[in-house]
Amino acid sequence: MKKSLLALAVLGALAGSAFAQTSVTVYGRMDIGLQKATGTSVTMGRGDNNVIGFRGTEDLGGGLSALFQAEMRFEPDTGNSEGNRTRPLFQGQTRVGLKGDFGTIRLGRGLTAVQDPIGGFDPWGTQTVGELNSYQLAGYSSSPLQGNAGNRFDNALFYNTPSFGGFQLNATVATTEAVIRGSDAVAVPVTERPYSLSGTYANGPVAAMVGYERNQVGTKFASVAASYKVGMANIMGTVSRQDPVVGSNINSFVVGADLGVGAGNVKVGYGQIRDVSKKFAVGYWHNLSKRTYIYTDVARVNPDVGRSVNAFDIGVHHNF
Amino acid sequence: MKKSLLALAVLGALAGSAFAQTSVTVYGRMDIGLQKATGTSVTMGRGDNNVIGFRGTEDLGGGLSALFQAEMRFEPDTGNSEGNRTRPLFQGQTRVGLKGDFGTIRLGRGLTAVQDPIGGFDPWGTQTVGELNSYQLAGYSSSPLQGNAGNRFDNALFYNTPSFGGFQLNATVATTEAVIRGSDAVAVPVTERPYSLSGTYANGPVAAMVGYERNQVGTKFASVAASYKVGMANIMGTVSRQDPVVGSNINSFVVGADLGVGAGNVKVGYGQIRDVSKKFAVGYWHNLSKRTYIYTDVARVNPDVGRSVNAFDIGVHHNF
Amino acid sequence: MKKSLLALAVLGALAGSAFAQTSVTVYGRMDIGLQKATGTSVTMGRGDNNVIGFRGTEDLGGGLSALFQAEMRFEPDTGNSEGNRTRPLFQGQTRVGLKGDFGTIRLGRGLTAVQDPIGGFDPWGTQTVGELNSYQLAGYSSSPLQGNAGNRFDNALFYNTPSFGGFQLNATVATTEAVIRGSDAVAVPVTERPYSLSGTYANGPVAAMVGYERNQVGTKFASVAASYKVGMANIMGTVSRQDPVVGSNINSFVVGADLGVGAGNVKVGYGQIRDVSKKFAVGYWHNLSKRTYIYTDVARVNPDVGRSVNAFDIGVHHNF
Repeated sequence: MKKSLLALAVLGALAGSAFAQTSVTVYGRMDIGLQKATGTSVTMGRGDNNVIGFRGTEDLGGGLSALFQAEMRFEPDTGNSEGNRTRPLFQGQTRVGLKGDFGTIRLGRGLTAVQDPIGGFDPWGTQTVGELNSYQLAGYSSSPLQGNAGNRFDNALFYNTPSFGGFQLNATVATTEAVIRGSDAVAVPVTERPYSLSGTYANGPVAAMVGYERNQVGTKFASVAASYKVGMANIMGTVSRQDPVVGSNINSFVVGADLGVGAGNVKVGYGQIRDVSKKFAVGYWHNLSKRTYIYTDVARVNPDVGRSVNAFDIGVHHNF
Repeated sequence: MKKSLLALAVLGALAGSAFAQTSVTVYGRMDIGLQKATGTSVTMGRGDNNVIGFRGTEDLGGGLSALFQAEMRFEPDTGNSEGNRTRPLFQGQTRVGLKGDFGTIRLGRGLTAVQDPIGGFDPWGTQTVGELNSYQLAGYSSSPLQGNAGNRFDNALFYNTPSFGGFQLNATVATTEAVIRGSDAVAVPVTERPYSLSGTYANGPVAAMVGYERNQVGTKFASVAASYKVGMANIMGTVSRQDPVVGSNINSFVVGADLGVGAGNVKVGYGQIRDVSKKFAVGYWHNLSKRTYIYTDVARVNPDVGRSVNAFDIGVHHNF
Repeated sequence: MKKSLLALAVLGALAGSAFAQTSVTVYGRMDIGLQKATGTSVTMGRGDNNVIGFRGTEDLGGGLSALFQAEMRFEPDTGNSEGNRTRPLFQGQTRVGLKGDFGTIRLGRGLTAVQDPIGGFDPWGTQTVGELNSYQLAGYSSSPLQGNAGNRFDNALFYNTPSFGGFQLNATVATTEAVIRGSDAVAVPVTERPYSLSGTYANGPVAAMVGYERNQVGTKFASVAASYKVGMANIMGTVSRQDPVVGSNINSFVVGADLGVGAGNVKVGYGQIRDVSKKFAVGYWHNLSKRTYIYTDVARVNPDVGRSVNAFDIGVHHNF
C-alpha cells in the first residue's frame, strides 16, 4: 500500500513538472546538404525546410479540443530566418482553433486546402533538388505577391470536415485585407477574395485529392492527384491547370514513384509544364532511423527555351 | 522493497530527462479573431498578444532564487514577428534577476512599475477591441519613441518589495543611454532619466494601485486604480493624468466591471480622455476550459473631433 | 505485483509525454549588467551572449548518433535579436550531423576549428569587459565581411576526430559561395575558400591548442595556446599572428589566470597586440550555484595611438 502511494507520489511530483510541459511540444527539423548545378559552384543549403515548432492540443471534454501550432523556419547554412528576412519569422504556420465532431476549424496563416495535401503526391514531398511540387502547381502561387513563399494564405479560416471512411473536405477562405510581403514595410492590396477547396481520400493503399483555388490577384488553379501502394512501391501522379488573369491556361502533369529498397527509398519522377519546362529526377534516401536519413538526388530540367540544367545534392535530414 | 526501488528507478530515469527540462518552461498564448470597424472591411488579427515564452526559476538556497523570462511575440494572421519587424523580437520582455527576502530585482526590458499592474484594472486586460487601457493611460506612452510598443522601459532595473499583507512597492529605473526603436538602425537619444514608481495592494476582494512615472522625453504620468469583488462581479475604476512636456495636462478615467455568468464572463466598461475621446464597450468571453475561451466584443469610440467609430470582434484565445 | 505494474504504468504514462519531449532540449543563458567606460554614461547590456537554444542527440545504434543544435541570440536590454538585426537570428550556430567511431561531422554555420577552442584560454571566456579574446585573435576575424559577428563560417563542414587520449584534430571547410552579411539584402562574394584547422589537447591539468585558419578574403591566422591547473589556479597563455592580405603581420599575446577563491573566481589577465593596443583586466565572479553567478570586472585598454580607456561592469549570469 505504501509502495503504490510512493508510485502515486512519483506521478504527482512529476505532474508538477513533466506534465506541466505537455501543454506545448517543441519539435523541429534540420536538413542541410551540398548542391551542385550546371554552371554554378558547389553551394550548401537546405534540402527540406528547417523548422523550430511549437504545438499542442488541449482536451476540452465532450469530444472538443483546442489546438495550436506556430512553426518558425530558418536557413541552416547561415543561421538566418528563412528567406533572410524576406519571409515571416513563422513562415511554416501560425494557426489556432478547435476540433470536434464538426471537424477542425483554425484561424491564422498556413498551407491552403490545396497546397496542404498536394505535396504528398510528389515523391520528394516538395524537398531537395528532386522536388516536383513546382511542376504539380503548373507555376501557380497561392500568395503571388509574397515571392516564392507563396503556397500559404494569410488572414485565413481553415476548415476540415471529419474523415468519412478516409474522405475529407477542406476549405480555406481569407479576408480581403492587404497582406504583408516578407520584409516589406508596406502591405500589398488584395484584389480578389482568396479561397481554396479540396477533397482528399486516404484509405489503405489508395490516396487521392482534387482541388480548386483562387488567389488574391484572381489567378485560378485546379489539380487532381492520386497514389497507389503496391508492395514496397508507392506510384503517384498529378494533373494540374493554372488559369492566370492574363494569358492562356498553363497545364502540367507529374508522375513518380517511391520504392522501398532495404533500409532506404528510391525515388523517381518526371514532370512537365506544357510549353515551359520538363524535369526528370532520381534519388536515394537512406534511413538511419525513423527520424534521420541521408539522401542524394539528381535532376535534369529542360526548359522549352534555353539550356538544360543538371542538379545534384547530397545531405542529411533529422527530425526532432 | 523491490517495488519501491522500482518506483525510485522510475523517478531516477525521469530525473535524467523530464527534470533536466524543468530549468526552462516553454509557454505561450495564441489569440486570433475577426474584427470589423466602421468604414473598413473585415480583417483578421490578434485580440490579445501572441506569445512564445521561455522562463524559469532556480532555487539558490537560503530563500534566494534566480529567475529569468524571455517572451517572443508574433502576429498570428501573417506569421510575422509582432509589429512586422518594427518591434523587438522579444517584445514581451527579457529580464533576469534574483528574488529573496529583500524582494525581487531584475535587469532588462519589460513593463514598467506602473504599466505592469494597470492592465489588471481594465475589464479586458488590455485585450481585444474592448480594451480601455489606452484610456487608463490618458494617451501616455512609457517609451514614446518606440511607437505603440510603448509601455516598456529598455535598459532598466526593476525592483519589487516583498508583499506585506498584500502590499508591494515597485520601482523601475532606466539608464539614459540611447534606445533602439523597433526596426530602426539608429538609436534614439534619451533626454530624461526614465523612472516609474507604484504601490500595489491585493488582498481578498480588494485590489488597488497608485503609480507615478516619467518617460525618456520628460512626460509625466500619474494614476490611481482600484477594484472590488462582490459576488460574481469585479467592479473597477481608474483615474489618470498625463503631464506632457509641452501643452496642458490630459485627464482620463475608466470604469468597468467583469461579471461571472455561468461558464463565461460579461465585460462592460466606459472610458473618457477629457477633450479627446470617449469609449464604451461590452463583451462576452465564454470559457471552454481554464486555458481556452472564445470571445466577442462591441465597442464605440466617440472622439471629441470627428466621427464616431464602432468596432466588433469575435475570436479564440488559447494559453499553453 | 500489482504495485510494480502501477509503477510501470507511471513510467508508461510518462513515456508518452515527458519522453516525447527529450528529442529536443531547450536551453539557454541570460547575462546582463551595467557597464561604465571612460567618457560615456552608464549603459546596460550583455556581458556574455544571451541564448535560447535547441539541441538533441539521437542514438542510431552501432555507435552512431545524429545530433543537431540551433542557437538563437538576443539583446537582453532591448529584447532585440542580437546585433539589432545586423546578425543572423540563430547567431550562435545552426548545425546538424553525425557522430560515430570516425569522429563528428556537422554541416551548417558555427565557430570554426580555431575559434571554438580558443575562447577557453581567455580567463573571461570571451565575456564581459574583461574579455581578452580580441587580443587572442590579434584583430583577426573569421568572417570579416560580417562585422564583429565574425568568428564563424557560413556554409561549412565541421569535422572533429575522436579523442585520442585527450587529443583531437578539428577541421572546418566552407564553400566559396557568397555569404549573407547580417541584415544585408545582397550576398557578399567569397574570394578565397575559407578553412580552419586545429589540434586540441585536454588531459588532467593540461589543455592546449594549435590552430591555423584562412578566411574568405585570404587573411591568415595562426595561434598557439595552453593552460595548466595548479591547485585552485588555472594559468593560461596564447600567442597569435594575423597575416593580412595587405600590410604586415600583426602579432599578439595574452596571459591570464582564473583563481578559485571560496565560492567565487578571481580573474586576471593581460593582452597585447603589438603596435596596436594593450589591455589589463581583473574580475571577480561569485557563484550563487552551478548555473548562476554575479560578476564584476575592471579593464584598462591602452591603445598605442590615442587615449586609454577604463571600463567597469557588474552583472548577473544565469544558465538554464
